[in-house]
Amino acid sequence: MSEYKILPVINSPADIKKLPKNQLEPLCTELRQYIIEQTANNPGHLGASLGTIELTVAIHYVFDTPTDKLVWDVGHQAYAHKILTGRREAFENNRKLNGISGFPKMTESPYDAFGGGHASISISSILGMAVAADLSGNKTRNHIAVIGDGALTGGEAFEGLNHAGNAKANVLVILNDNGMAIDKNVGAMSKYLVKLSTSTTYNRFKTKIWNLLSGKGLKARSVMQNTQNMVKGSLLKESNLFESLGFRYFGPVDGHNILYLVDVLSRLKNLKGPKLLHCITMKGKGLKKAEESQTLYHAPGLFDPVSGNILQPEFDPYKIEKYQKVFGTTIIDLAEQNEKIVGITPAMASGCSLDMMMQCFPNRCFDVGIAEQHAVTFSAGLATDGYIPFCNIYSSFLQRSYDQIIHDVALQNLHVVFCIDRAGLVGEDGATHHGVFDLAYLRCIPNMIVSAPMNEMDLRNLMYTATQTKSPFSIRYPRGKGVLQQWKNEPFSLLPIGKGIEVKKGQKIAVLGIGHITNNVVKADKILQQEGFDIGIYNMIFLKPIDESLLDFVCQNYEQIVTIENGVKTGGLGGVVAEYMKQHNYNNPLTILGIDDVFVEQGSVAQLQSLCKLDVDSIVKTIKEL
Amino acid sequence: MSEYKILPVINSPADIKKLPKNQLEPLCTELRQYIIEQTANNPGHLGASLGTIELTVAIHYVFDTPTDKLVWDVGHQAYAHKILTGRREAFENNRKLNGISGFPKMTESPYDAFGGGHASISISSILGMAVAADLSGNKTRNHIAVIGDGALTGGEAFEGLNHAGNAKANVLVILNDNGMAIDKNVGAMSKYLVKLSTSTTYNRFKTKIWNLLSGKGLKARSVMQNTQNMVKGSLLKESNLFESLGFRYFGPVDGHNILYLVDVLSRLKNLKGPKLLHCITMKGKGLKKAEESQTLYHAPGLFDPVSGNILQPEFDPYKIEKYQKVFGTTIIDLAEQNEKIVGITPAMASGCSLDMMMQCFPNRCFDVGIAEQHAVTFSAGLATDGYIPFCNIYSSFLQRSYDQIIHDVALQNLHVVFCIDRAGLVGEDGATHHGVFDLAYLRCIPNMIVSAPMNEMDLRNLMYTATQTKSPFSIRYPRGKGVLQQWKNEPFSLLPIGKGIEVKKGQKIAVLGIGHITNNVVKADKILQQEGFDIGIYNMIFLKPIDESLLDFVCQNYEQIVTIENGVKTGGLGGVVAEYMKQHNYNNPLTILGIDDVFVEQGSVAQLQSLCKLDVDSIVKTIKEL
Repeated sequence: MSEYKILPVINSPADIKKLPKNQLEPLCTELRQYIIEQTANNPGHLGASLGTIELTVAIHYVFDTPTDKLVWDVGHQAYAHKILTGRREAFENNRKLNGISGFPKMTESPYDAFGGGHASISISSILGMAVAADLSGNKTRNHIAVIGDGALTGGEAFEGLNHAGNAKANVLVILNDNGMAIDKNVGAMSKYLVKLSTSTTYNRFKTKIWNLLSGKGLKARSVMQNTQNMVKGSLLKESNLFESLGFRYFGPVDGHNILYLVDVLSRLKNLKGPKLLHCITMKGKGLKKAEESQTLYHAPGLFDPVSGNILQPEFDPYKIEKYQKVFGTTIIDLAEQNEKIVGITPAMASGCSLDMMMQCFPNRCFDVGIAEQHAVTFSAGLATDGYIPFCNIYSSFLQRSYDQIIHDVALQNLHVVFCIDRAGLVGEDGATHHGVFDLAYLRCIPNMIVSAPMNEMDLRNLMYTATQTKSPFSIRYPRGKGVLQQWKNEPFSLLPIGKGIEVKKGQKIAVLGIGHITNNVVKADKILQQEGFDIGIYNMIFLKPIDESLLDFVCQNYEQIVTIENGVKTGGLGGVVAEYMKQHNYNNPLTILGIDDVFVEQGSVAQLQSLCKLDVDSIVKTIKEL
Repeated sequence: MSEYKILPVINSPADIKKLPKNQLEPLCTELRQYIIEQTANNPGHLGASLGTIELTVAIHYVFDTPTDKLVWDVGHQAYAHKILTGRREAFENNRKLNGISGFPKMTESPYDAFGGGHASISISSILGMAVAADLSGNKTRNHIAVIGDGALTGGEAFEGLNHAGNAKANVLVILNDNGMAIDKNVGAMSKYLVKLSTSTTYNRFKTKIWNLLSGKGLKARSVMQNTQNMVKGSLLKESNLFESLGFRYFGPVDGHNILYLVDVLSRLKNLKGPKLLHCITMKGKGLKKAEESQTLYHAPGLFDPVSGNILQPEFDPYKIEKYQKVFGTTIIDLAEQNEKIVGITPAMASGCSLDMMMQCFPNRCFDVGIAEQHAVTFSAGLATDGYIPFCNIYSSFLQRSYDQIIHDVALQNLHVVFCIDRAGLVGEDGATHHGVFDLAYLRCIPNMIVSAPMNEMDLRNLMYTATQTKSPFSIRYPRGKGVLQQWKNEPFSLLPIGKGIEVKKGQKIAVLGIGHITNNVVKADKILQQEGFDIGIYNMIFLKPIDESLLDFVCQNYEQIVTIENGVKTGGLGGVVAEYMKQHNYNNPLTILGIDDVFVEQGSVAQLQSLCKLDVDSIVKTIKEL
């Protein structure tokens, strides 16, 4: 910290308030530098946080946090907030096991008024707090939600606006408009925000309103009335969506002008009721490469803090690809053969590699923005007309569309293929992002086929097989690398639905695995063999329908059964097998390996697998104990 | 049908098209009469359907259904549509076992382009079809979604608008604005629609635009351009939210003027791109009592078709109350003792009886509109500040907030109490409304307490117990009557979390039940006792945490175990018990009673319980076979 002058003395927002105003910009510069240096060496969500530095400093300078409540939507953008609220040194362990979370987290700091991770919840949660203050007779507390234009497309944000605009609660929504989700933001709202930002009407309006607000001697009430009249009157020739919903709209303002932001927020602080401040910011602000390639620098991994150049990952002599690449390649292969195949993703195009198909078939790919519910029903609509939508959603975000999966897809038995990325423990993103519930929550849905590939070929063949059925079909796979060198040029195989395969015949103990985690069993087996054990290994591929003849076989030919899954123990593969065995009076002892009934925090995938006893060593130990 | 002149000859929309225009209004009159007569004797959703009769006739007169696609949001309002599309006689069996569904249903008719039941999905699904047409090169097909102002508050509707407004697909959204969900509609959007409807600016605009559209010789293109200019130009002094989202807005129009509607729709038919027609309708239109008491006549049960008077239900000498009444009474009792208790419901206030608390504590109750996601996160926000929100949502609609339950409540271990109404088989509302997945999808969530009362006292005590814990707490109970005469004046008891109770000690066979369905076991036991059987009966109360010592006890003291639940067999109580028994090497045979892995259609609760083998006779039979 030797090169920093101001940052080392900021241990809480109270210290910011002590600074003379002319020190705020230098503080922002140091903060930006610190975030760049730290994330260069300890990967995290860089771009969003670089875009909100001035906003963060201004909020903590003007408002009385943590008494005033501040909620960051998603929380990718809250690094500066963390650093300024007593977590400067702790930030070195950002996203690490036993370190701090990459998102706001209530148990971590009183300054984190609500947790982050999933999008579009900040308006609903801050309104809850504002209404609580109102019920308690607290008329002075402020309630601030910072939401990106990406998160604003999620339906819950609208639900929150609709309630808040009518509730007259004391809420300030700060729209952090950088034109981006992870990829470029999409949709009518996004276009509308651009129009608002570039409108000369609004710029004139802005000047007048600030002049009015700063006029001495004007009471808040008359300012408000004047504001309303101006908004509703002649100035506002264009429509304003937020005003329609009962919010007073202010902006757009330059979100990188710290002194101006302080000025604006100070004025807004005393205005009661629901209000929205539209801030224009730039994702990656201050690091040239990040400004130029905003999607890439959303979470760039290791990079050089000076040049910004992204460091190449370690050379892999085996050239093992990520499952994401396999998905991206395969959907193109399938789409070339079948013109009915289309791709849908709610704002995860680059993350899931649907962007590869977008290059080849732009008209047949749909990034619908952060809108998981719509993504699923829209897919269902396409399916009614004979299209085969591949709807790619991360496991933990698929929770957002649970009702649509049941009601719009499964109940109508529509042919939608769910490619569920980021399934299982995801690592550093932590508790909010682990995709560990999907097996349990999908397998109780009638008509739904639930599957998981053990390797790249399985994924490829499952995707192909999904096109050849007529049912709702889900395929879940983890983030990161597979295990095979050769998969690209292999022809597709039609997998029999509900059939697992024997990976290795063994004796006494049979391990039934679903998905990529089964590879850990194969590795454990190599160690166990050296010690004289000879387990059987079975790759179930399908959780539903479950391979009953395989279950009969293992129950009849092995003494003990072990199941393993990268998901919760409650109701997943272990549950299916337990139910089957009980109902068919198989009395072999059953050991269920999976994730206990607790939320798992962040850490590397290897660390977390070890913690959950799903790693190779733990499997070896478990088997030996049996 | 003898008194009907036109309706008997309408067997499909083609027959409507053959009518001279002056016969359309008489057709509407007959349709209205027919719906009143039918629903008077066979209860259904009266109010909404009476409000859309003219709209329905106009749509089928103007558009070429089923080639043109028509989606009804929710579908309460689609009775006229069903009757006009070949289901006039079938309507006599509306909502009955083996009859037609009370909602649109794809497998029932090609005119039902997409199923209904849950709200706010029509824009997403119709957009899927519109994009499909576009991909297939079909430029002429029309795509119409009819959505109520109530359903418009659901976030997915906004997600759909956001995508559709930017997609430039050929979509007509008809906003059926009656100012109501089941109860009066709420929120900023609702107010905004009233403002739009009463605006003189809009009325002037409307006149000009229709004149323009009807002008001979004008090509569609120039009409469109003129329209856009008018909208963006001087006429539109007030903001228009739909225009902001890329829709061309038309209206408001009188939704009960059939000839005018035909005229308007005919003109809009040829305008490409996304457009919204704002129709003002009245729920219950044409039946005086229904117009006057719109909430009551949403689904009035049996009534007199002439006077409209609702027939009193059969006299119940035992005066058994509904669980809904127990909830409503109990939350008031609790709220009187504890000022931190607040009530939240997403547009189900009268259905769940939170309206009772609204009478006593209007400031502490929140109907947030159709917005299940927001309801849960808003509750979580209140909980961060020490309030104890009772969030009442029907089981099948709770699916809509699954992610919020996991991410905003359970992960943060916030003290939100979920009162889950309409759990289990609901009867005539059918597949979309059965609340049969909740036990399975809730029990895999860490920190969540999952419970179900066997009777009114259990419900009362669970609600009380929920206030005395600090965890997320869910209580699920069915629609309809309990079993006890006496519960109101009993003092509250604190139930030990995770403890079941022995209802009756028995021999050989122990039946473990969760929830109200366990009463069927008690009734079955009376029959079985006469035949010399002596089963043990256990009321688990809690699914999670499960009562392990009780499980140990029954496994050690009975030969066979039977579980029963009013929910899916896959992953519910049966699953919990199977997992526990397998992991603790209990080899007693286990029989799981519950709902098979299929969607169950409509019928009376008794019929459906019989179908699912959960009725008294089936339980007797099952036990005897064991």
